[in-house]
Amino acid sequence: MPHRTLRPFFAPRSIAVVGASSTRGKAGYFLFRNLLEGGYQGRLYPINPGSKRVLGCRTYSSIRDVPERVDLAFLIVSGAHVMQVLQDCANRRVKAVTIVTAGFAEVGEEGRARQMEIAALLRDNGIRAVGPNSVGLVSAPNNLMGSFVPFPRWPAGRVAIAAQTGIFTGAFADQMSVRSTQRLGFSRSLCLGNSIDIDEVDFIEYAGADPHTDVIAVHLESFKRGRAFLSAANRIKRTKPIVVMKTGRTEAGARAAASHSGALAARDRVVDAALRQYGVVRAKTLDDFIGISQALAWLPRPAGSRVGVVTLSGAMGVMAVDEMEGTGLTLASFAPETVAAIARYLPSWQPVRNPADVWMALSAGAEQAHARILDAVLADRGVDMLLSILLPIPNADFAAVRKVFARLQREHREKPIVLVLVGGLVKERWLSALEPLKLPVYSDPGAAVRALEAVRFAVEHRTRICADPLLPQAERVL
Amino acid sequence: MPHRTLRPFFAPRSIAVVGASSTRGKAGYFLFRNLLEGGYQGRLYPINPGSKRVLGCRTYSSIRDVPERVDLAFLIVSGAHVMQVLQDCANRRVKAVTIVTAGFAEVGEEGRARQMEIAALLRDNGIRAVGPNSVGLVSAPNNLMGSFVPFPRWPAGRVAIAAQTGIFTGAFADQMSVRSTQRLGFSRSLCLGNSIDIDEVDFIEYAGADPHTDVIAVHLESFKRGRAFLSAANRIKRTKPIVVMKTGRTEAGARAAASHSGALAARDRVVDAALRQYGVVRAKTLDDFIGISQALAWLPRPAGSRVGVVTLSGAMGVMAVDEMEGTGLTLASFAPETVAAIARYLPSWQPVRNPADVWMALSAGAEQAHARILDAVLADRGVDMLLSILLPIPNADFAAVRKVFARLQREHREKPIVLVLVGGLVKERWLSALEPLKLPVYSDPGAAVRALEAVRFAVEHRTRICADPLLPQAERVL
Repeated sequence: MPHRTLRPFFAPRSIAVVGASSTRGKAGYFLFRNLLEGGYQGRLYPINPGSKRVLGCRTYSSIRDVPERVDLAFLIVSGAHVMQVLQDCANRRVKAVTIVTAGFAEVGEEGRARQMEIAALLRDNGIRAVGPNSVGLVSAPNNLMGSFVPFPRWPAGRVAIAAQTGIFTGAFADQMSVRSTQRLGFSRSLCLGNSIDIDEVDFIEYAGADPHTDVIAVHLESFKRGRAFLSAANRIKRTKPIVVMKTGRTEAGARAAASHSGALAARDRVVDAALRQYGVVRAKTLDDFIGISQALAWLPRPAGSRVGVVTLSGAMGVMAVDEMEGTGLTLASFAPETVAAIARYLPSWQPVRNPADVWMALSAGAEQAHARILDAVLADRGVDMLLSILLPIPNADFAAVRKVFARLQREHREKPIVLVLVGGLVKERWLSALEPLKLPVYSDPGAAVRALEAVRFAVEHRTRICADPLLPQAERVL
Repeated sequence: MPHRTLRPFFAPRSIAVVGASSTRGKAGYFLFRNLLEGGYQGRLYPINPGSKRVLGCRTYSSIRDVPERVDLAFLIVSGAHVMQVLQDCANRRVKAVTIVTAGFAEVGEEGRARQMEIAALLRDNGIRAVGPNSVGLVSAPNNLMGSFVPFPRWPAGRVAIAAQTGIFTGAFADQMSVRSTQRLGFSRSLCLGNSIDIDEVDFIEYAGADPHTDVIAVHLESFKRGRAFLSAANRIKRTKPIVVMKTGRTEAGARAAASHSGALAARDRVVDAALRQYGVVRAKTLDDFIGISQALAWLPRPAGSRVGVVTLSGAMGVMAVDEMEGTGLTLASFAPETVAAIARYLPSWQPVRNPADVWMALSAGAEQAHARILDAVLADRGVDMLLSILLPIPNADFAAVRKVFARLQREHREKPIVLVLVGGLVKERWLSALEPLKLPVYSDPGAAVRALEAVRFAVEHRTRICADPLLPQAERVL
């Protein structure tokens, strides 16, 4: 049962925080406060030999003094104390540790040697470990906020997200989730850090079997076990799409980028091809990573790849077409009855095409025209998905807009709908009006196209299990 | 004096609006209202044979009845009336017309024939024309809001912007300008429409000589006079950078994109190479078009291409390095004293690199550390520009942050500084705190890198006047 590996991390019955501190500003303060205020219902043990109470809780001077066996211990102590604390954990048969302390393999040779000592101790005692150099982890279903980054609130959702760095674990995730799309809801978030033990493969195995997760999103700067990852992904993608944002090329690679960019770019193309071969969606930017994960979590799976585009801006319709080049998406051909339905609202001289530029329908004042055109396009059997480009009109009747899209979603359940909404002064009002619908909104035609393409790609590869051997170049790279 | 061509459009002493309407919702209503309420100080004549007053102003039933010679007439009448109105304009020796009416060359053969009739009449009578199928034009210095798109307010600035479509002329521009970066201030905005007369070349000639303009931004779906554009750009870029967003490939091209994408992509690579050869910055997305124009308008010109990156997120530092690949930017090597200045605030085990990951400096609680590190990097003689990646901390001391960056700008006047600020809940507070500084803020490391690269490119090509003949492929394409 490989997916049990992460259970003590995401669903522990008891947690010790070694290095919990009452000094505001310290990582040990924030991590303990987040656990306490986050609403975690298990037992919490702050460990700090130097103070009697932390945030009103009685402290223990060592994990040795804790009256029960601890499932998960967070280590936020100086590097010099890590070995001793781990030895204590071993003695008390702690199941799992998350080592927040940094300064190991990521800083060079000496740190790498100390990390190897730790690894040996963990292995000898059967302790599973996240980190070192981890910001922590978050588990939404049980309100476990095990991150030292202060964060105000957490949107629960169906995306499990892991990252080599702390970028998504904590306040930053909260901020990030409000980017160009709406807030991205997480089920679990894990900062892998140096992956001394738990790595990206363990994470996708766990998330693959996790009933709280529908989509798996992983940000990596390097693969720890690239081939095992592909092999696991090959199986998991049948039920849950996997999105990978692979940046940089290890610390050393990033440093070398200036002088060896050619070689690194070639290496990156191999990663790209391998992920594609095994049906893993790749996101190239932070925006896409969020936007694509959102689309995969919210949208139904389309039956094909034909996109209907309905736009209030002709220029942005053209941009959407530009962006479809080289993807597996195609522009739908509208059926004669769809063309007729659209033509009804346009001046007689305007030809109906896909993208359908419906600006004239609105500027002519036909209030319901837009809704009817969208409905006609979605009803077209030759259309598998809808990309609707709006203008952020300040004085829109937001309730009416929400009703229109709610009805379109209800009546065309099997067809993904995404919106493009650029800017601006009123965008937040639009987003909050649309929030209950789980309707992805992008601020750029390209982002919307890449999200639909990811959905299509995931559907196509769901049943296309890769039996081929890895490309020979990938054998060397991964 | 080619730059005089557009004077009657952007600085008319009198304007007639043929088709001004008091029916709320009509284009002729909005255009006249925008002119009236925008604060234009010249004389305004609403023309409408069917009503006595429009928005409180006395109307004229024809341009023939207007008591003076009109500099600029807007035509917002049905297609059937355009020729008659133009004949009236010719009789009254109107200098320039902006034809808003659509339904000409953009809709097919018949429309093209009618457009040719119009062209002949204009030419025979020496009338300069924008459009047809133009949303209008805006000129900030004289508060001329000649667009039928309703818009609430207009940020004046130093970027002149022209587009084939109405995308930037009106409300949309207002919305767009609040995108990932701050509000982009315009000097002039022109919707070229079908370019029956005035085209992209006339626009850059005018903007090139315009004392209110520092940066010229042009969005095109096709070049009307590609080679003349390059030749003019070759001269104008010495004093003002030119940014082009070229999307689609004419209406027909966009329709054909699905079946002929390969050929079109090759054609597009030729456009790319030609623009590069002649020193024109190319933006690939809407976001970049705005973000790059902003950077060119706000930043000083750097002496070289070496970038110092200071980041609170290691992951985003790596992303920035990824994005620098293939650009003319290089990662700066920090001088020993810079390394020492940074190391002072980091744990002893953390090596100092570029990107400098300064998270540890902040998490250790050294409030002034970040400012001192940024200052040290900017003071380094091996650093030409600074890319600073922040985290949008909700409870930041915004006044203090503004002070820090104001001082950095003041003390390092010759070095461009850009920020990356992802998300989120508090981003608007950050942006308004930083607003007075004219400090470009991007929501993605890639966008920031592309903006710095554009600035570097513009500097490099300012004095590199292209004497080479056009690439042979470009001869055919442009």
